[in-house]
Amino acid sequence: MDSLQLHKTYRGKLNISSAVPIIDRETLSTVYTPGVGNVCMVIKNAPETLRDYTIAGRTVAVISDGSAVLGFGNIGAKAALPVMEGKSAIFKEFAGIQSYPLCIEEQDTEKFISIVKSIAMNFAAINLEDIAAPQCFVIEKRLSEELDIPVIHDDQHGTAIVTLAALLGAIDITHRTSVSVAILGAGAAGTAIARLLHSADEQHVLTLSSLKVFDTKGLISTDRTDLNEFKRELAVLTQQKETASFESGLNGVDVVIGVSVAGAITVQHIQAMNKHPIVFALANPTPEIMPNIAQEAGAEIVATGRSDFANQINNALAYPGIFKGLLDGNIRHVAMQHKVAAAKALYEYNKPQLSLEKILPSILDKNVPEVVSAAVIAVGEV
Amino acid sequence: MDSLQLHKTYRGKLNISSAVPIIDRETLSTVYTPGVGNVCMVIKNAPETLRDYTIAGRTVAVISDGSAVLGFGNIGAKAALPVMEGKSAIFKEFAGIQSYPLCIEEQDTEKFISIVKSIAMNFAAINLEDIAAPQCFVIEKRLSEELDIPVIHDDQHGTAIVTLAALLGAIDITHRTSVSVAILGAGAAGTAIARLLHSADEQHVLTLSSLKVFDTKGLISTDRTDLNEFKRELAVLTQQKETASFESGLNGVDVVIGVSVAGAITVQHIQAMNKHPIVFALANPTPEIMPNIAQEAGAEIVATGRSDFANQINNALAYPGIFKGLLDGNIRHVAMQHKVAAAKALYEYNKPQLSLEKILPSILDKNVPEVVSAAVIAVGEV
Repeated sequence: MDSLQLHKTYRGKLNISSAVPIIDRETLSTVYTPGVGNVCMVIKNAPETLRDYTIAGRTVAVISDGSAVLGFGNIGAKAALPVMEGKSAIFKEFAGIQSYPLCIEEQDTEKFISIVKSIAMNFAAINLEDIAAPQCFVIEKRLSEELDIPVIHDDQHGTAIVTLAALLGAIDITHRTSVSVAILGAGAAGTAIARLLHSADEQHVLTLSSLKVFDTKGLISTDRTDLNEFKRELAVLTQQKETASFESGLNGVDVVIGVSVAGAITVQHIQAMNKHPIVFALANPTPEIMPNIAQEAGAEIVATGRSDFANQINNALAYPGIFKGLLDGNIRHVAMQHKVAAAKALYEYNKPQLSLEKILPSILDKNVPEVVSAAVIAVGEV
Repeated sequence: MDSLQLHKTYRGKLNISSAVPIIDRETLSTVYTPGVGNVCMVIKNAPETLRDYTIAGRTVAVISDGSAVLGFGNIGAKAALPVMEGKSAIFKEFAGIQSYPLCIEEQDTEKFISIVKSIAMNFAAINLEDIAAPQCFVIEKRLSEELDIPVIHDDQHGTAIVTLAALLGAIDITHRTSVSVAILGAGAAGTAIARLLHSADEQHVLTLSSLKVFDTKGLISTDRTDLNEFKRELAVLTQQKETASFESGLNGVDVVIGVSVAGAITVQHIQAMNKHPIVFALANPTPEIMPNIAQEAGAEIVATGRSDFANQINNALAYPGIFKGLLDGNIRHVAMQHKVAAAKALYEYNKPQLSLEKILPSILDKNVPEVVSAAVIAVGEV
């Protein structure tokens, strides 16, 4: 069935049912009034028990403002809902976690934060989705600080975790000891990848000889005067001080990670890199460079976001297990350690099958969420 | 299983699942990226199709601020969640309608309205629940006017519809041609009952010889100076001009409807009424007067909100069918005609079994939602 037909036939992708069949008056008066009154009063007197007695203890919200949906950009909250529903369906099918999608028709950062805070009590965790940079950084930070449940913007961290896992595989199979990395794109994903690679280096999970991030104006460095606070942080984090174009900046680079737009990486770019480079072209649905062209230009390993090519970097490898781990491990705040541990677990799980064309497990491998979840739980609350 | 144990065992009462089993890459790319992109773009270009392709077309929101929960009063949004979950479970079990509960931690009227408006696009209809008067009147009116989906505050209209149905049965079985009615309580339920009875009289569904509403200070009449705008409307609607206490006002009254607090109706009150009065004592969980005492005092028919006595007036008889009718009939605005038609349908469906102790169908009768829904659809968009 084609996608439009499927959505129309099912009229959305989630079914909600009663956990308890209401077959007689006794059950009715247990799940509803008067029996439910006891539960209300227990929660009234001890609000921290809310998540023991209600779906707020086991439901992940998938929340978006529709400001950066797939490759389409700001198409608005309504048009974003099918994506959020799909994400909720994947949570359940892959990790057995129940999830509910909510699109919010409000793109003012402060108002959006305030709305999410007013409904957060209904959920055990929040997956922010398809929210544009730089607002997504503010929204995630504020909600993480101000709520008592985990909040993750998956476009940042899901992508970053799977990218790190893929990079660990690529480094292993190509017998590298250290890598110089260039990231093209300083939006939600590019920023999160840079931060996670930097943290993985600090945690000695890989060795970076250099890390550079490029936006449409070139290398993000401390001598630029046009940077917002988040890009300025990136410049400091990556210790880049000079001006460079993307092409000139690729000199001496082993790995390029594109999180930008179709066509943004050319044969000339790849030829400007070190020999046998690693190319992750993650723009969706059309990559920065097509895999066959990148290979002809000398790339040793190519990964994309697509399921019809080898080495698919898909955040569905990370988020079901991440949230399962946070919920099952009763972890309230997400730290770099959780993300690095999740990436490492993905890489190690794939090791027996590791090859140039298989640097990651399959997204349909039903063991993956358990592997990731166990790694998150092992880290615990940080 | 006791209620607390049941809630802890199930950890809430709703299960969410994927409507489509995601078994292979093809299905994954149909329900999620890249296939879902087509659906997003169709909605982007024609936002009115949102409800054809998503759960927003078939999911009722049950929304509360926790300001008037069951008989407990303002116990807050968290403590209200088990009630909203129960309501969603009943929607599904009784009428086959899927529903999702959301408690909102905001009791400022304007802010609450604004939050509900920002998330309304995710739903096909809104059931407002357990919101205190008089804010509930403002909230329901504004949302009904400003949203393109039906909005019903069930504590008002569900209760009013079932009360009218019960009254029609009581009038029939006692062979009355007209009735004088006193309502004790001018909150959400009392106000809605008064308005609905008045409309039923105008629609010639019953004949009221008089209609009086009492609050804690006595009869609501135009000569009182302490009334808010909603009570003032009631005074005008009921054409009451003079001052009276509840007891003195019961002189010449056939029917008393208590929607107030336990113990508010006494033997003396019943003895002040016309002979063989009809007594609806709807306070939950403890009625205004216990049925055996009311009967000893002379009541011919007694109804309460409780399942352990005869004649249970429970809004679960109305709301599943009302919402099913609105959704299946594609009706956007709820009118008095829908409510009167629903009450009449309930009364007529029960006619073959009508007796002094059975003025309403059983809430477990699985035909009831269909009966109510058909009546709503027959009225259509007004």
